[in-house]
Amino acid sequence: MPKMKIGVFDSGLGGLFVMRALAQKLPRYDYVYLGDTARVPYGNRSPQVVHQFLEEAVDFLFKRGCGLVIVACNTASAEALRKIQQDYLPKHYPSRRVLGVIIPTVEEALAGKSRGAANAPSIRRLGVLATQGTVRSGTYAREAQKLAPHIKVFQSAAPLLVPLIENGGTKWAEPIVREYLAPLRRAKAQKIILGCTHYPALKDMIRKLSGAPVVSQDELIQRKLADYLARHPEIDSRLGKTGKRELLVTDITPGYERLARKWFGKNARLKKVAL
Amino acid sequence: MPKMKIGVFDSGLGGLFVMRALAQKLPRYDYVYLGDTARVPYGNRSPQVVHQFLEEAVDFLFKRGCGLVIVACNTASAEALRKIQQDYLPKHYPSRRVLGVIIPTVEEALAGKSRGAANAPSIRRLGVLATQGTVRSGTYAREAQKLAPHIKVFQSAAPLLVPLIENGGTKWAEPIVREYLAPLRRAKAQKIILGCTHYPALKDMIRKLSGAPVVSQDELIQRKLADYLARHPEIDSRLGKTGKRELLVTDITPGYERLARKWFGKNARLKKVAL
Repeated sequence: MPKMKIGVFDSGLGGLFVMRALAQKLPRYDYVYLGDTARVPYGNRSPQVVHQFLEEAVDFLFKRGCGLVIVACNTASAEALRKIQQDYLPKHYPSRRVLGVIIPTVEEALAGKSRGAANAPSIRRLGVLATQGTVRSGTYAREAQKLAPHIKVFQSAAPLLVPLIENGGTKWAEPIVREYLAPLRRAKAQKIILGCTHYPALKDMIRKLSGAPVVSQDELIQRKLADYLARHPEIDSRLGKTGKRELLVTDITPGYERLARKWFGKNARLKKVAL
Repeated sequence: MPKMKIGVFDSGLGGLFVMRALAQKLPRYDYVYLGDTARVPYGNRSPQVVHQFLEEAVDFLFKRGCGLVIVACNTASAEALRKIQQDYLPKHYPSRRVLGVIIPTVEEALAGKSRGAANAPSIRRLGVLATQGTVRSGTYAREAQKLAPHIKVFQSAAPLLVPLIENGGTKWAEPIVREYLAPLRRAKAQKIILGCTHYPALKDMIRKLSGAPVVSQDELIQRKLADYLARHPEIDSRLGKTGKRELLVTDITPGYERLARKWFGKNARLKKVAL
């Protein structure tokens, strides 16, 4: 049986931050990145449309030989992942796995710096900065309350950050970031989750303006995946370990090629596919 | 033979500015608006993808009974319309028509206030503010030089304006608009075309900052269509005149419903369709 790859899916190229961290921390695995650049951004679309797009992407990645798909896109993780895991996978691909980023991020935020140590100082007020769709879904709040029933979760929708990051607008971001962070500051959030794959591009600015420690997925997903694979040797044993990487997108423009090189290294080569 | 409708297509809801002007100026006709809100914005996508999306939209509108489709989206008009008119229409729908917004807008800009009067002062330096895709296509410059071979055309890409307008960010637009207009001011453009359906939402600000008269499509397309129908009675006679309106979109969210009411009136009702 041929060895399988790890798929990393994002609505656009923001997931390259996570993909880069995975490729550094777990370099031996074979990766396929898929960015739906023809339909990015997902953050302001309806849950129905996001679900349809995610199902198409997961199906594509499984057909491309992925045994495990990481949905780096927070909007898709928040709005559509559970349905894919509960209805679509058992029916069509019962032996494969799709993992999201929301639960590991919440675990990390609640665990404190000492990562799960029993005596870590507990957080009572958690902030989340995310897209409109992720905020509307309430998934971050629900998952945090499952792990810590008395926690208060404060969310702020940041619909302009993805367009600013994707279109060279970060120099105008500061007043906008300041306004998006204001409700989280007022609520005295003790930690702030960056709930979108793109936001690591503004991490330094958000850290400066946030008034609280920031939890960024490009610093934690690689560790969470390593833990997962260690706990699931039956999945790990089916994964190829020849260090292959493939970067697939549904649309290529000079702008996307520039972003890919900026975020994934100067040898990044995009290849266009149809979902 | 049943009477046919006028289709108005846009990547999102910005085309409602044009649709509203058409419905006011030519109220007796039957209209179907189609906004591809599941895949908006088009402005930063490749010409290949924009062509594919436009072909799907035109096909949908023809199957829905449109005899004439107006492509309100400048990006689609600039990057894909000619191919649709030359290859797709003759083969699949030889008796129907697809019209863009670029040529009428250029005619208007070059005609001067007196609209085609022989003694209108001629423009020698024309500015265009548009999306990345429209600018990259060079279509505005090509069409202007066909009508006025010695004209100089200066373009400025404004990739952030559509996201700002669609996501409640216009209060942050001024420094961004100022920067996008700077090359057109430096070039001493004598008129500035707003080359995107969304830009009428920022018309007052752009007028204030532009330093030159602004040509806005929501003020001219209705007149150009009336002229076209008067010149083509064979098309006009096939169009229904019962004042019907339908607003179709590929995705509905509370945000889109709000924008539709804001831009088309409080009775605007969106209906979701699949292309």
